[in-house]
Amino acid sequence: MHRSTFRVRYGDTDRMGVVYYGTYADYFTVGRTEWMRDKEVPYREAFEERGLLLPVRRMSCRYLLPLHFDDALTVETWIADLRPTRLVFCYRVLAPTGALAAEGDTEHAFWDEEKQAPVNLAKHRPELWALLQAAADVFGADKRD
Amino acid sequence: MHRSTFRVRYGDTDRMGVVYYGTYADYFTVGRTEWMRDKEVPYREAFEERGLLLPVRRMSCRYLLPLHFDDALTVETWIADLRPTRLVFCYRVLAPTGALAAEGDTEHAFWDEEKQAPVNLAKHRPELWALLQAAADVFGADKRD
Amino acid sequence: MHRSTFRVRYGDTDRMGVVYYGTYADYFTVGRTEWMRDKEVPYREAFEERGLLLPVRRMSCRYLLPLHFDDALTVETWIADLRPTRLVFCYRVLAPTGALAAEGDTEHAFWDEEKQAPVNLAKHRPELWALLQAAADVFGADKRD
Amino acid sequence: MHRSTFRVRYGDTDRMGVVYYGTYADYFTVGRTEWMRDKEVPYREAFEERGLLLPVRRMSCRYLLPLHFDDALTVETWIADLRPTRLVFCYRVLAPTGALAAEGDTEHAFWDEEKQAPVNLAKHRPELWALLQAAADVFGADKRD
Repeated sequence: MHRSTFRVRYGDTDRMGVVYYGTYADYFTVGRTEWMRDKEVPYREAFEERGLLLPVRRMSCRYLLPLHFDDALTVETWIADLRPTRLVFCYRVLAPTGALAAEGDTEHAFWDEEKQAPVNLAKHRPELWALLQAAADVFGADKRD
Repeated sequence: MHRSTFRVRYGDTDRMGVVYYGTYADYFTVGRTEWMRDKEVPYREAFEERGLLLPVRRMSCRYLLPLHFDDALTVETWIADLRPTRLVFCYRVLAPTGALAAEGDTEHAFWDEEKQAPVNLAKHRPELWALLQAAADVFGADKRD
Repeated sequence: MHRSTFRVRYGDTDRMGVVYYGTYADYFTVGRTEWMRDKEVPYREAFEERGLLLPVRRMSCRYLLPLHFDDALTVETWIADLRPTRLVFCYRVLAPTGALAAEGDTEHAFWDEEKQAPVNLAKHRPELWALLQAAADVFGADKRD
Repeated sequence: MHRSTFRVRYGDTDRMGVVYYGTYADYFTVGRTEWMRDKEVPYREAFEERGLLLPVRRMSCRYLLPLHFDDALTVETWIADLRPTRLVFCYRVLAPTGALAAEGDTEHAFWDEEKQAPVNLAKHRPELWALLQAAADVFGADKRD
């Protein structure tokens, strides 16, 4: 699991005075980008520069407590499911008090940019697959395809 | 059900060349805002100006086909569940070809801005509750609390 | 000059209760995209699909009146300066009352995506240059390079 | 002058593959928020919670080099002009190499939230005016009104 802490920007809020519900997608993106950097599989170098993308197939979010401008929020990110054809990241967004503000997940395909098609990572990029498997702290998750 | 058609803006896209996954939250918001206007319960006048908000409690989205800059997309919006303490909007986002690009839903509470607390709409705003019930084309949904 | 009318989205606002100052960049983008479509030099087909981009070199905006959620704003867009190596769009954003809410401009280069270099449009794409010249309703502007 | 370093988020980019021109408004906002925190006049506590806002009256930006996803950019922020009725922040956005990627400024009014009117800070909030004057490292700028 990886923890990333940063502050709510002014433009993240809406006229309700709190963080806009769509902004959490950005927080999730920061969370998984930092998870990947922390695990030494940085998205840009390990994926994009090798022609691999991780498009989002599904996302969900539950909103429990509002966040406000300038709050130092924390995103906890981990991999909940890792298979040769897909990857699920889970996120918990914590308010400055440590209370759970939101939680959610995103499911990603492995996408070959040149072929414009999904790929089986274990077959086509065994070295990346091995790196991700080593990096994923998947508790109780099924890694088989 | 309400249909709203508009074009993908340049800033809606990301470096993958397609609409960023977080942007769909904006499309859903346009969808339900236009649904409400169409049903003569406009959000600003019928809710905000009476001190009522509809904060999002949960959202989910499934992504099926990418959308591109300048695509004329259509958002289909309807109410899938309406109860005195919550409301669920469903959305289908269609590509210019009519193919399903994404689908999802958002669940909302009824929130009293002054009290800063959720309210039972049927009890506290029976006239709005009646309007929403008349407006909601809920097929097969359970309207009881 | 082209007029484009659309509504303020919820996510366009910030916690001050009005449209966030950065959102006007999106409104300008809609304005020039619609100007180009209206003049039959649509950005995607006339520029992008021919390997030409119009990156922004400079932008400015003056904010006069706030805009609110659901306001039907109007963006007036015109070309204030057109030269073989650059293009200036001007914008006026009008509140629903017709009062001036904001005004600004953006300066663009003509950029060859393959060469990754600016180009002289009159020399390298004389047909597009002619189309743009015909389309630009440049009053009192200097079209020479 | 204050330096703030953070990374380009995925959603900050557009289909040109680089940071969208409207995103720089967000970077400027981070820059001045961090400047204020650093100078011990944090926006939320020193302004908002005392009923004072700093709405943007004018902004401009020049774009020199593109920024890419995951780049660690630096925003340099300083006050270029401070008067009892307005404030000008200047920004320089540096690429990871240290090269200048963009520069710009924002002009702000002092706005009384209750009165919904601009105020003369020196007269109405002399203590905040004194704090800002002490904090502003205004080189060669005219502080008189």
